[in-house]
Amino acid sequence: MILSDSQLDRYARHIVLKEIGGGGQTRLLNAHALIVGAGGIGSPVIQYLAAAGVGKLTVVDDDIVSLSNLQRQTLFATRDVGAKKVVAAANVVQRMNPDVRFLPVDRRLDADSAARLLDGMDVVIDGTDNFATRLIVSDAATAARVPLVSAAVGQFEGQLAVYRGWEDGRPCYRCLVGDNPDRPDISCSDQGVLGALTGVLGSLAAIEAVRQIVPFGDDTTGKLLLVDALAFRFRTISVAQDPECRCAA
Amino acid sequence: MILSDSQLDRYARHIVLKEIGGGGQTRLLNAHALIVGAGGIGSPVIQYLAAAGVGKLTVVDDDIVSLSNLQRQTLFATRDVGAKKVVAAANVVQRMNPDVRFLPVDRRLDADSAARLLDGMDVVIDGTDNFATRLIVSDAATAARVPLVSAAVGQFEGQLAVYRGWEDGRPCYRCLVGDNPDRPDISCSDQGVLGALTGVLGSLAAIEAVRQIVPFGDDTTGKLLLVDALAFRFRTISVAQDPECRCAA
Repeated sequence: MILSDSQLDRYARHIVLKEIGGGGQTRLLNAHALIVGAGGIGSPVIQYLAAAGVGKLTVVDDDIVSLSNLQRQTLFATRDVGAKKVVAAANVVQRMNPDVRFLPVDRRLDADSAARLLDGMDVVIDGTDNFATRLIVSDAATAARVPLVSAAVGQFEGQLAVYRGWEDGRPCYRCLVGDNPDRPDISCSDQGVLGALTGVLGSLAAIEAVRQIVPFGDDTTGKLLLVDALAFRFRTISVAQDPECRCAA
Repeated sequence: MILSDSQLDRYARHIVLKEIGGGGQTRLLNAHALIVGAGGIGSPVIQYLAAAGVGKLTVVDDDIVSLSNLQRQTLFATRDVGAKKVVAAANVVQRMNPDVRFLPVDRRLDADSAARLLDGMDVVIDGTDNFATRLIVSDAATAARVPLVSAAVGQFEGQLAVYRGWEDGRPCYRCLVGDNPDRPDISCSDQGVLGALTGVLGSLAAIEAVRQIVPFGDDTTGKLLLVDALAFRFRTISVAQDPECRCAA
């Protein structure tokens, strides 16, 4: 793949970075990312991966846009209320960058569809709001050996981590949260969320997705970033592999 | 001001947070923010403050959208290339939230216009890419007693701080960088920038702007956040007032 003049111009600010360069930009254009959830986290993930020219974005979400989404889900406009999120998101991406192919999947993930969708992916970004789906995505990503970028927010707090649970001694998401799928979800609808915090965590998730594709900088796998917006505190801790976890088997 | 049913729905995720509530949301709707620079930092600042229902956004930028902006400036679409940034941004905000009045200022700030624009503002967010303008904004904000949220990115690094330099013993931006307006600028065009990092710093700037308006949580004034995306490192340091600085006079 040779970058066109228009691509050299569009991606100039990435190409000039020696850690990315023309080679990294070409890998981004050839990459395929799976984004689970086109909500608060998914909005900036989709915007920044589309802007970066990630060649294919498959986005899974069965939800429709509601008025209360608009306080933080910057992909959507008031006229999108009532529309399918993946359809509204597809329109935004099409306007942003013709280099990006947007593949909408208007459904909720189950184990079968997760395994099918993950096959051949370069990275998966999970921005969903429930543990059951997160565990499905994590197990399928570990089985398919696809790096998982996992981001979450609730109230004034956010979390971000990258998992490569199939690698020796590395944790998966299940090592962090345990096995209980009935664990109560942290839902924005009940507890609220500081809108712009979804922008912080979603943008960080986009950075980690780009890092997995290019790659650049330090290895962030297995590090968990905890953001506390009330106290303006950022902490990074290491997640250990749970020897009892299925990923360690 | 009484919130309408539609506003109660749109802002429900902020209203349910006890640190914001209906009172905080009303303050956001009555607030006026000045955003200097509608670029990489300005894009998420404008998107998240518009989503949060900050009642008036005055945006200052004399630039037009170029193709190389689109790698990170998520406000703009490919068809906006060649258009005035403030005009394209106004269209986005209008579609996002009818509660927000967008006031475009198609010019570069000087000391006079900065003083005029800052009069009566609740907060100013500086996302420009040159020291000369940053010093003008800082001096005018200190003189007008308007909190300044200052965010910057270059390559893989970002900075964020909030200044209230008119308060006793508190630093201004000039205390951090010194007096030299000829200091070489860190320009994205020469050095490049990791696109999604502008999303991180811009979203954090939006959080700090909301904190100054509502307010919520801890006092972040005078703390400088340093983000190193290569090393995935977040550090917060305290900036001291420079006793030789004009803000200390």
